[in-house]
Amino acid sequence: MPELRKDPVLGRWIIIAKERRKRPTDFLVEKSQVLGGFCPLCPGNEDFTPPEVLAYRGGCQSRSNQSDWQVRVVPNKYPALIIEGELGKAAEGLYDRMNGIGAHEVIIESPGHNDQLWNQPVEHIALVLRVYRDRLLDLQKDSRFRYVMIFKNYGKAAGASLEHSHSQLIALPVLPRMITNELDGGKSYFRYKDRCLFCDIIRQEIEQDVRVVCQNESFITISPFAPRTPFEMWVLPKRHTSGYCHEDDTELLKLARILSESLRRLDGCISNVPYNFVLHTQPLRSGELEHFHWHFEIVPKLTSIAGFEWGSGFYINPMPPEEATQYLRESLDS
Amino acid sequence: MPELRKDPVLGRWIIIAKERRKRPTDFLVEKSQVLGGFCPLCPGNEDFTPPEVLAYRGGCQSRSNQSDWQVRVVPNKYPALIIEGELGKAAEGLYDRMNGIGAHEVIIESPGHNDQLWNQPVEHIALVLRVYRDRLLDLQKDSRFRYVMIFKNYGKAAGASLEHSHSQLIALPVLPRMITNELDGGKSYFRYKDRCLFCDIIRQEIEQDVRVVCQNESFITISPFAPRTPFEMWVLPKRHTSGYCHEDDTELLKLARILSESLRRLDGCISNVPYNFVLHTQPLRSGELEHFHWHFEIVPKLTSIAGFEWGSGFYINPMPPEEATQYLRESLDS
Repeated sequence: MPELRKDPVLGRWIIIAKERRKRPTDFLVEKSQVLGGFCPLCPGNEDFTPPEVLAYRGGCQSRSNQSDWQVRVVPNKYPALIIEGELGKAAEGLYDRMNGIGAHEVIIESPGHNDQLWNQPVEHIALVLRVYRDRLLDLQKDSRFRYVMIFKNYGKAAGASLEHSHSQLIALPVLPRMITNELDGGKSYFRYKDRCLFCDIIRQEIEQDVRVVCQNESFITISPFAPRTPFEMWVLPKRHTSGYCHEDDTELLKLARILSESLRRLDGCISNVPYNFVLHTQPLRSGELEHFHWHFEIVPKLTSIAGFEWGSGFYINPMPPEEATQYLRESLDS
Repeated sequence: MPELRKDPVLGRWIIIAKERRKRPTDFLVEKSQVLGGFCPLCPGNEDFTPPEVLAYRGGCQSRSNQSDWQVRVVPNKYPALIIEGELGKAAEGLYDRMNGIGAHEVIIESPGHNDQLWNQPVEHIALVLRVYRDRLLDLQKDSRFRYVMIFKNYGKAAGASLEHSHSQLIALPVLPRMITNELDGGKSYFRYKDRCLFCDIIRQEIEQDVRVVCQNESFITISPFAPRTPFEMWVLPKRHTSGYCHEDDTELLKLARILSESLRRLDGCISNVPYNFVLHTQPLRSGELEHFHWHFEIVPKLTSIAGFEWGSGFYINPMPPEEATQYLRESLDS
């Protein structure tokens, strides 16, 4: 029998349609690849991007636009938002608008054109994770911004338009709804229980041990109870903390380790599957929050998922997360 | 300069990235077609579907599984939810689940395999719209159900798996979040203004006349102020009413006229564009609501829209709705 499950954070019901279940190898993976050819993100082509915002050379922060970088951050050449100007908040009758002020940056994760994030040494992945934090801390100084979205689109079906491994960052003068909804969910739970909902989820997941993909001393990766797609994963810090920006280099090395393992396990299940990962962290102007817990959400984009789901927000998932977990646990052993 | 706009119902901010704008002909439309071959929905193949739930023959309701139907409703052969059983609501620690009880039906819109909804005579489209209503009224009698989602996926990229023109219906024992969020938005506004938000939107749109795609004496199609995708359209009744199920045959004929015109205008802009349309109506167990207003949302699925948007709920739309409206207005005249 199919099952209805409620996401405890958002209150979103999804259908687990077990009768439609497939083995990982049965999922169709979009064949169309991102266009190759000349790559503006490769070392030596620094002139083809706007000047660096930040780069790491030999493990240290720098800014010089030479080719010896390990991780490099540049403004998006075709930004969705622009950095200069006033917010210009205004009404249009009952509608609300403001100028598209914000930052839109590209984080080039590695000099090697064919490197993939999950195949890098963990020390290198940790560098990328430090860049996320350092950009968050820097953009926090701009009082116009309220949130920084950090995300990665891997594969054309997931929205990537360049082949070279990269993530993106969008600083916004408003809160995206995905965050306000999670804050609301966390707040309702805290009001009722005086505990962080995410901390309770982690406790229950460790105890039940049927949806834990992997863990180390500081972090845990789970298949969420009510996942939108097969092989959706959440990566969370085990201790309570609402802001990614507070993580130090030691913790980020442990995060690099679990993120690498989680993505390799995913790739082991469905080779080359397109996915999006999105960092969910506290708003820039809020201090440490008792009712929120930062985490990454990794959402594979499988072509067998109907467009309808994305349009209506109502998901039908053919893969119970307990089975997905089993596949993910076994995927690196075979 | 790009612009940030807030959806007045959901409070969702989106980016209108005018700098990335394209003409309708520049949008990439997914080439991959739905598989042809043997069609279980064609007349004569009635044995290949589960027995009819409802059919219209010669404009009247009937039930007989003969081949002379005009519109036919059958249970989905691979249902996401099943009709027989108890809800079995249960907790699993802090999580909530229930059995996947519900109805999942296919509404075959026409006997002709190659007919498209928007190319049918309006009298025939009205029949399809009457079927939507009649199924709503029938399923309302089942006290286990709280909502009926009626939707259409057109084109493979939008989730269609059969070529023959059809819509779907899912009866649910829970409210989908798209509806609870809209009800919440409508309620907040009503508490503040003592007016229906959607009625106010219609009034303002008629007055501004920059986002009205088309209208007749009873219905209006607008490009919403903060659309998720280029050419998104909402079709609303002009008078206040929260339940689609209350519309009579005369009104449904007028609705058929505007729906047909709206879809033909869309097809005139981007030929054969995949889209989803979803009926948003009041929950089954609520009476007529002051703060909600039923409507259809038509959301084209363009490949140039990144997968990221669908995953994070944060949209970047390269087409200002005022320009989309202009294209839609002109598309049937050329």
